[in-house]
Amino acid sequence: MIKASICTIGDEIIIGQVVDTNSSKIATRLEEAGISVVSMCSVRDNADQIRETVSRELSLCDVVITTGGLGPTKDDITKGVFASLTGSSAYVTHPGQLEVVKRILKGRGLDALPENLAQAAVPDTADVIVNEAGTAPIMVFRKVNGGGTLYALPGVPHESNAAIPAVLKDILTNSARRPSSIIHRNIMVYGIAESALSSLLNDWEDALPSSVHLAYLPNTLTGIRLRLSATADDDASSEVHSLLDRIADSLKQKLGNLVYSMEDDTLENTVGRLLKSKKLTLSTAESCTGGEISHLITSVQGSSLYFLGSVTSYAVSVKENVLGVRAETIDRFGVVSSQVAAEMADGVRRITGSDFAVSTTGLAGPGGDGTNPVGTVWIGVSGPLGTRTVSYCYSNDRQRNIERFAASALNFLRLYLEDI
Amino acid sequence: MIKASICTIGDEIIIGQVVDTNSSKIATRLEEAGISVVSMCSVRDNADQIRETVSRELSLCDVVITTGGLGPTKDDITKGVFASLTGSSAYVTHPGQLEVVKRILKGRGLDALPENLAQAAVPDTADVIVNEAGTAPIMVFRKVNGGGTLYALPGVPHESNAAIPAVLKDILTNSARRPSSIIHRNIMVYGIAESALSSLLNDWEDALPSSVHLAYLPNTLTGIRLRLSATADDDASSEVHSLLDRIADSLKQKLGNLVYSMEDDTLENTVGRLLKSKKLTLSTAESCTGGEISHLITSVQGSSLYFLGSVTSYAVSVKENVLGVRAETIDRFGVVSSQVAAEMADGVRRITGSDFAVSTTGLAGPGGDGTNPVGTVWIGVSGPLGTRTVSYCYSNDRQRNIERFAASALNFLRLYLEDI
Repeated sequence: MIKASICTIGDEIIIGQVVDTNSSKIATRLEEAGISVVSMCSVRDNADQIRETVSRELSLCDVVITTGGLGPTKDDITKGVFASLTGSSAYVTHPGQLEVVKRILKGRGLDALPENLAQAAVPDTADVIVNEAGTAPIMVFRKVNGGGTLYALPGVPHESNAAIPAVLKDILTNSARRPSSIIHRNIMVYGIAESALSSLLNDWEDALPSSVHLAYLPNTLTGIRLRLSATADDDASSEVHSLLDRIADSLKQKLGNLVYSMEDDTLENTVGRLLKSKKLTLSTAESCTGGEISHLITSVQGSSLYFLGSVTSYAVSVKENVLGVRAETIDRFGVVSSQVAAEMADGVRRITGSDFAVSTTGLAGPGGDGTNPVGTVWIGVSGPLGTRTVSYCYSNDRQRNIERFAASALNFLRLYLEDI
Repeated sequence: MIKASICTIGDEIIIGQVVDTNSSKIATRLEEAGISVVSMCSVRDNADQIRETVSRELSLCDVVITTGGLGPTKDDITKGVFASLTGSSAYVTHPGQLEVVKRILKGRGLDALPENLAQAAVPDTADVIVNEAGTAPIMVFRKVNGGGTLYALPGVPHESNAAIPAVLKDILTNSARRPSSIIHRNIMVYGIAESALSSLLNDWEDALPSSVHLAYLPNTLTGIRLRLSATADDDASSEVHSLLDRIADSLKQKLGNLVYSMEDDTLENTVGRLLKSKKLTLSTAESCTGGEISHLITSVQGSSLYFLGSVTSYAVSVKENVLGVRAETIDRFGVVSSQVAAEMADGVRRITGSDFAVSTTGLAGPGGDGTNPVGTVWIGVSGPLGTRTVSYCYSNDRQRNIERFAASALNFLRLYLEDI
């Protein structure tokens, strides 16, 4: 087993101004490659702390991957700390990285400043993996003080992300140990609370073979991901694969249409797949979700094949004048009602000419309308089998409500699409 | 100085399936209260690793805050590990938490199962802070093995977030050490690359007093946050405040309208503030941003005061039929053009009756239109002083492009609003 540790460097992380998204991206890719991540840590832009933490992790792991502190500004000190940690006596400019630095500056129409060119210089104790996406080279310090190998990646997320394939290749090429293989199956569930799901699966879970582990991973936008895991050595791996397949199938049987995908997936992807395979088009009419459903749908590559457009009708006048919701419906039933959700979905379907339309009207909070509790949403889906509506009531947290309303709407649409 | 460490527990974090957002939220609140976060770490749901890591951090820090592993499912083991770490011999049900558990289940229309009720039981070595937002109580283990105090919080983000005020109060009440005070000023900048900004500020930065630290914190949606920091003891704090105020002002002078806010802020908040103060209304017409601008604007509490609505016109037919973009404009200039951006903004302004409208048309990628490079966007703003357009070209990363297009559009709107 190759053991890895991920260490992010930067005051902005430690004081909480920036969420560390690098660690999870790197961990995902390491795990997929059979490299076991054993810990993650974050430290300040402080030389002593970087040295102590990285040294500790290098003594415990085969591989330590750091991100951050490689920029051109004065608060970036990682390179100097690693030069001293590895006893480097000089810096060497890497010609391949220098070319990238010049190319990037030229593309931005900027002159090459000394601090930009200095980005291409590394301690003489480092091997270099060229960073094509940015100015700071990826540095590799092998077997530091007799311990693990240290990879220093930039902190900018798309740069560290772009560096991962080359880093993985370097790890697997240079490691004496064999990558292990942890096999996962993901089952995506929407429409049930975690505790209810856990109690529904209690006996079934007790009967699982001891080699198989089940984890519950809840998320506001994607529901609950059930993850089955088992470790395989090469000889047994096809057996482990078919064992996990059988168990995943039995879970699908047990949970029925609560399951929306048998792989790590999102509701917007699932809806997109269904629309594409059935050659159907979609539009949305959003009030309380304010464009979030449209945003989720269009974040899927290729969504222009089935998504025609959307109207966010925050004001009553837009509901009436653009979507054609009748004033008397609003007067009689209120804006947050089954009838308005239905007319919104019918309206946007009519003006865009789509096969399906999904709508939301509700109270994300914190203010209410004096009638419905904050957290109430009505969802409408207009389609070839008629218009369906449903209502939910969540919490009084605005951001979470917007996400849960949007996810519930996508799930309600998904269930309708499965009927077609 | 009170030193704190934050430790998140859960396989889902370590294998990269979930991004840890708890640590940054907790760190922000600790720093605000003058408690210095010195490190963050994440470990697996593994008893040995939890024990070793938490013990190590307890020996280094005054306070260790963990999140995760307190759920009702079988993969949650934190409570048991802490019981053993603190030499607990029995569990005690906490009546206050038990009531919350029952109330939550009732609210969801569920029966109380034994595993739900067991959530309210804690090791007899723990003090309890009642978790009003969920079933797992917050546990406090004081001076564990002669070291720091351990706070165990739930992993669900809104629960751990809700627990922070009570945890802070407990830390400040029970700590022998005094909180220190690090004073920050944030200056939000949009419309310049980090390296260009750094070279623009190079001499200015060299002339800063050595007690003041400047950090560059870039973010796709909010631009670059410049953070000035200085440590103050109580006696000198008003001096340090006015020093930082003077430095922040001189930065504002130097950067002009690149600065959109003098506090930690977002573009959508700034736009909202400007609209509200000028009593103006807004609508949006989005193509390539797919609803992201509308989503950002409506994520601001109270946005219904100035935001009327939005049309996402993904299909050409929606651009023509709903927004009234002329077919001949599209034929002559192409969908991704200054002219179409202008007609989209004018169109949505007309149909919603808003004072201002902002529009986007471009290529988020990965596919292109054969004419414009992937990453091209045209932005339009229609308002009382006429219709303005601008174009940018970014990368070929779909998600980043959507975010950069949306942020650039909000910034272009912000600059127009500052002219009114």
